[in-house]
Amino acid sequence: MAEASAFHGRTMGCLATTHSKAIHKLDIPSLDWPIARFPQYKYPLEEHTRENAEEDKKCLEIVEDLIHKFNGAGKPVAGIVIEPIQAEGGDNHASPEFFQKLQQIAKRTGAALLIDEVQTGGGPTGKFWGHEHFNLPEAPDVVTFSKKMLTGGYYFKEEFMPSLGYRIYNTWMGDPAKVIMLEEVIRVIRRDLLLETVQESGDVLMKGLLEFEKKYPQHINSTRGRGTFIAFNGTNTSKRDSIVGRLKLKGIHAGGCGEKAVRIRPALIFQPHHANIFLDRLEKVLCEL
Amino acid sequence: MAEASAFHGRTMGCLATTHSKAIHKLDIPSLDWPIARFPQYKYPLEEHTRENAEEDKKCLEIVEDLIHKFNGAGKPVAGIVIEPIQAEGGDNHASPEFFQKLQQIAKRTGAALLIDEVQTGGGPTGKFWGHEHFNLPEAPDVVTFSKKMLTGGYYFKEEFMPSLGYRIYNTWMGDPAKVIMLEEVIRVIRRDLLLETVQESGDVLMKGLLEFEKKYPQHINSTRGRGTFIAFNGTNTSKRDSIVGRLKLKGIHAGGCGEKAVRIRPALIFQPHHANIFLDRLEKVLCEL
Repeated sequence: MAEASAFHGRTMGCLATTHSKAIHKLDIPSLDWPIARFPQYKYPLEEHTRENAEEDKKCLEIVEDLIHKFNGAGKPVAGIVIEPIQAEGGDNHASPEFFQKLQQIAKRTGAALLIDEVQTGGGPTGKFWGHEHFNLPEAPDVVTFSKKMLTGGYYFKEEFMPSLGYRIYNTWMGDPAKVIMLEEVIRVIRRDLLLETVQESGDVLMKGLLEFEKKYPQHINSTRGRGTFIAFNGTNTSKRDSIVGRLKLKGIHAGGCGEKAVRIRPALIFQPHHANIFLDRLEKVLCEL
Repeated sequence: MAEASAFHGRTMGCLATTHSKAIHKLDIPSLDWPIARFPQYKYPLEEHTRENAEEDKKCLEIVEDLIHKFNGAGKPVAGIVIEPIQAEGGDNHASPEFFQKLQQIAKRTGAALLIDEVQTGGGPTGKFWGHEHFNLPEAPDVVTFSKKMLTGGYYFKEEFMPSLGYRIYNTWMGDPAKVIMLEEVIRVIRRDLLLETVQESGDVLMKGLLEFEKKYPQHINSTRGRGTFIAFNGTNTSKRDSIVGRLKLKGIHAGGCGEKAVRIRPALIFQPHHANIFLDRLEKVLCEL
């Protein structure tokens, strides 16, 4: 089971759970796996508490219904695959309550809960793992990681250890050279308190962006994020594309995701003064539009 | 389309083409892709020319029949995936003529020919690519590599270039650090003439093993190989396992593959005097049995 707009990779099994861009899936065979819906919140959150809680409820009902439907049809759902923040799909966030209840559904229906932390893992949300923001009563069953973690991997609960040898095996077995580099990366994250830097820089970005969305509501809205893992929407796709293009001309690399989001993905060493440079140039772009 | 006993990887799409050990495929969903048969030769080759030529013919007929069957059933065969030497499946070899005719079938039926050089690529057969032994009139359409090549990759003919951007894409795009290391590996292979070393050491191994199979026919037979990519059979599975285990006790790491093969996979720096150490210890094992 995966969700609409999810991105979980490009090899064939992963791709069966990916639903962000049609181009990714073109010509590749896929599987009859259920696709649920990731919550689509209205922003600012504090003005839409009731609607967003209803959206959570509706999405959770869809998940549980799909599991029962597939289980009943003899295609039992072995697991649920979800991003802590649905990145490629548009930087879509869901509440801690949503993830807590999703974990309850997983446990109740016997499906494993896999949280895909390929984009969120390693610090960019201000915690080492994105799912640490959700106060889950217990760890997810499986967590996948890559990107900032330098090598692709996953950790898992002991009961998910394959009972037979040779079930999970490959030539480089985790690529030891990358693991040595990763140890150094983690040492530097701790030594330089980079998770705190991410939180501080993220606060500067959020504060600035929330001001801009009040000041330029004709151009941007829906700022959301954790740490420096932040996005805002252009009022439509061409507005978004124009912002991304104009930022590039001012030396700022930001990306598009989903239909109309601009996403910010700085490195962990991005500091508050870098955040101010970003805001300064973004405001110039917003004035130009 | 893949062949029985083939090993092409463990991710889901790859696994649909892998048929070497049942344990690899347990619990993993698969696809209705045709599986042909890889030639099973009788050794020594020079005493079984007629039977082996018939085996080639039979296997090629199966390939062509399967393609027509699947094409006719509305499941067109887009490509043929094959190892130059079927390694995990038991170090099964096929003649240059077999591969030449397979390429003709591929061209005639519009299926791409992918040669999986993950084990054979990078020198162990005494040529840089295993398929160079086959004198194909033109290059395969796609060649995959890994292991000795340090990073997983493939090369392909220009007409296989995706027509749209973003079709083939991932975070590290070939892992540039590994490509730098690979450049150095290739420089050393050239500087130290390692392909010639592989041929010389392989000749010593083959000569010694062919003598042993005459001297100890109650234990081993069917020596075959290219370069140092060599295997021989135990007379049965338990004999094979016993040889591999006893070699280990004498400091020699060899592997089993297929039902009863012992495979030798030395590094490219393995020299004729190392081959003599191997033969000396193997003969001690054969005397012990």
